[in-house]
Amino acid sequence: MQIQTLKGFRDFISLEARKRQYVINTWQKVFESFGFEPLVTPTLEYDEILTGKYGEEGEKLMYRFEDNGGRKVAMRYDQTVPTARVVAQYSGQLPIPYKRYQIQNVFRADNTQRGRYREFTQCDFDIIGIDTPQADAEIVATTYAAYKALGFSSIKLLLNDRAVFEGLTPTTIAIIDKLKKIGEDGVVKELVARQEYKTPEEAKNILTSVVDSQPTPRLQDIMTFAEKMGVPNDALVFYPALARGLDYYTGMIFEVEIDEYTVGSVAGGGRYDKLIGMFAGKDVPATGIALGFDRTIDALEQFNLFPQEVTSASAKVLVTIFNKELESKSLQIATQLRLKNIDTELWLEQDAKMEKQLKYAIAKDIPFVIIVGPEEAEKNVVTFKNLLTREQSTLPLEEVIEKLQ
Amino acid sequence: MQIQTLKGFRDFISLEARKRQYVINTWQKVFESFGFEPLVTPTLEYDEILTGKYGEEGEKLMYRFEDNGGRKVAMRYDQTVPTARVVAQYSGQLPIPYKRYQIQNVFRADNTQRGRYREFTQCDFDIIGIDTPQADAEIVATTYAAYKALGFSSIKLLLNDRAVFEGLTPTTIAIIDKLKKIGEDGVVKELVARQEYKTPEEAKNILTSVVDSQPTPRLQDIMTFAEKMGVPNDALVFYPALARGLDYYTGMIFEVEIDEYTVGSVAGGGRYDKLIGMFAGKDVPATGIALGFDRTIDALEQFNLFPQEVTSASAKVLVTIFNKELESKSLQIATQLRLKNIDTELWLEQDAKMEKQLKYAIAKDIPFVIIVGPEEAEKNVVTFKNLLTREQSTLPLEEVIEKLQ
Repeated sequence: MQIQTLKGFRDFISLEARKRQYVINTWQKVFESFGFEPLVTPTLEYDEILTGKYGEEGEKLMYRFEDNGGRKVAMRYDQTVPTARVVAQYSGQLPIPYKRYQIQNVFRADNTQRGRYREFTQCDFDIIGIDTPQADAEIVATTYAAYKALGFSSIKLLLNDRAVFEGLTPTTIAIIDKLKKIGEDGVVKELVARQEYKTPEEAKNILTSVVDSQPTPRLQDIMTFAEKMGVPNDALVFYPALARGLDYYTGMIFEVEIDEYTVGSVAGGGRYDKLIGMFAGKDVPATGIALGFDRTIDALEQFNLFPQEVTSASAKVLVTIFNKELESKSLQIATQLRLKNIDTELWLEQDAKMEKQLKYAIAKDIPFVIIVGPEEAEKNVVTFKNLLTREQSTLPLEEVIEKLQ
Repeated sequence: MQIQTLKGFRDFISLEARKRQYVINTWQKVFESFGFEPLVTPTLEYDEILTGKYGEEGEKLMYRFEDNGGRKVAMRYDQTVPTARVVAQYSGQLPIPYKRYQIQNVFRADNTQRGRYREFTQCDFDIIGIDTPQADAEIVATTYAAYKALGFSSIKLLLNDRAVFEGLTPTTIAIIDKLKKIGEDGVVKELVARQEYKTPEEAKNILTSVVDSQPTPRLQDIMTFAEKMGVPNDALVFYPALARGLDYYTGMIFEVEIDEYTVGSVAGGGRYDKLIGMFAGKDVPATGIALGFDRTIDALEQFNLFPQEVTSASAKVLVTIFNKELESKSLQIATQLRLKNIDTELWLEQDAKMEKQLKYAIAKDIPFVIIVGPEEAEKNVVTFKNLLTREQSTLPLEEVIEKLQ
């Protein structure tokens, strides 16, 4: 038997799990600071709830099977359809607006060659039930705060209103959406090649008319509100060539870019008033965003933004055991440190060599160790060693506690 | 189409999700304070990894299917087998001892009539790779700290050593394990009825010999160490009739009881040296515990131990909008409150009646509201209303911030 995980599925061990937990915790705090409430839905749903909601392509990527009781079931594919189910199922019990965030894993049998995972974390938050520019602005402001809280300094929010594309065909819109990738000439060429327009001049006029658009009054309102909600003016960029999935969105659309992070936008969203009511049998206005979880972690890594408490071990200090006689002393110290809220690992053997204990601390990225030998015990001090700088000093425990705090 | 979840699967909306998140956050902090590291494994594994590991009964309850690529896969059934895989797959890369905690959902197609869920959260932590009483004691001490941190006051740790049962048959042990439920007479009767012993006298002698056992020297060590690690002496109870799943455990076994919580023990674990090495092809010593997640939440509810920050909304205050002219003022205040780390919800419409806004705050369990009408704006104060006590006062924003902090 091969000891392995399935292709597209991942283990997250220690450091990698801590990084993900850090992003989740940081974001939860931001979402809650704006009054969003958590929602958790099951991993499995009735197949008929999910089926037909993700288009032909999506259908193929769904994990669907028959359970032991012969029920057709499917694994979570996104968080929007389950949220739509919740909105219909608990209608009348949810406050309006219903502001919820959801951070769970979704499952897609996608081609792993394209660098895609088959189980990955989605993170999105939405305001459901009202259609106001203030709600759109709050999504923008919360998104900004979410990236700011992670320490990113150059966050750009590209905003547009789907009204900018009125009268254009979906194909034209999709080609204009590539402006950033293929440039003006590229867009014009493709518009003609795909026979959207007859001449380059005509195509260029259309592109210019889009690029030179002014923000709609609604989008202007959204940007004004977002600024009052704490988003710096220079982070808000009207970007009329931004299209995203137009079938889905009905108003504001926006994306988040981090300067110098060239892989692509780290988040995207907008207003989508025709989707959340799919089970309720009526239009339910909604606005929201999905933050790219893996991409954000990738960007945090690129800019070295994980704080030291995340990149070092859970425990900040290892209390070593010098020998059997002095073990009690070390135990006492470990317990004292924990009472002072210092995350502390205690060596759990009586007779290990000090070298082995230090190696363990280094392997586990524990930044400090405490050693209590006979001399230290006699003088009522401890040896405190910084494993990064290799500095060490002998001092009373109280001073070590101060340093660690 | 029925808008519903599958039997045995649950939605957790707002309050219910916050409660679960609170327990997870509290426990993560405790585990990390003892140097345990997070582990996250995939929801799906190769079927052959999981199959044959849970006995005949377990096999029937597993969610198994063929994925789109024809691979036989199975959903996470517990966290021990995936951990055993990790230990084999990354052998040499993990520090020894490997101290990990894991809090993920597992899937069992169990009979929901028995009050069981088909998707539920497991929470366990283990020390893998060393066999010392200190390691066992640390599991006990961490468990105690985990329940203490949730505010439980009367925590009992019932401890035993499987050595107490040496020479007894599995059936006898299973019957003795019921002592608490069926009493001494019940045990004696059943031992005779099941023909384990011929006479009630003989059965009673055996039971007495178990009940009167002294803790093994190893268990005495464990209890001494646990006390030094911060567990009060009276929380450590030697309970020789405690058996648990004997096939699984090889040394210490223990359970956690909360006084006056009569549903049953909230957690159970022990040493199991023959299991974690199943993929590594050798014995790997291990000691650990599974904390009962749903049961712990049930007990927290029974004793009203959820703190107010969990039972009230994420946002601590709703900033209302008096009218269009005063909206800017309210926006400013909401942004200021958030800058002071006060979780704040802002009303997102310009022209809603104040009554509607207050009703929303009440429905969402937001404890406070701020109102800025023309008089307040003129005098540079706000009206601050406590929705629980219905008290309200008019005061400068700085004082409101102090109160909310």
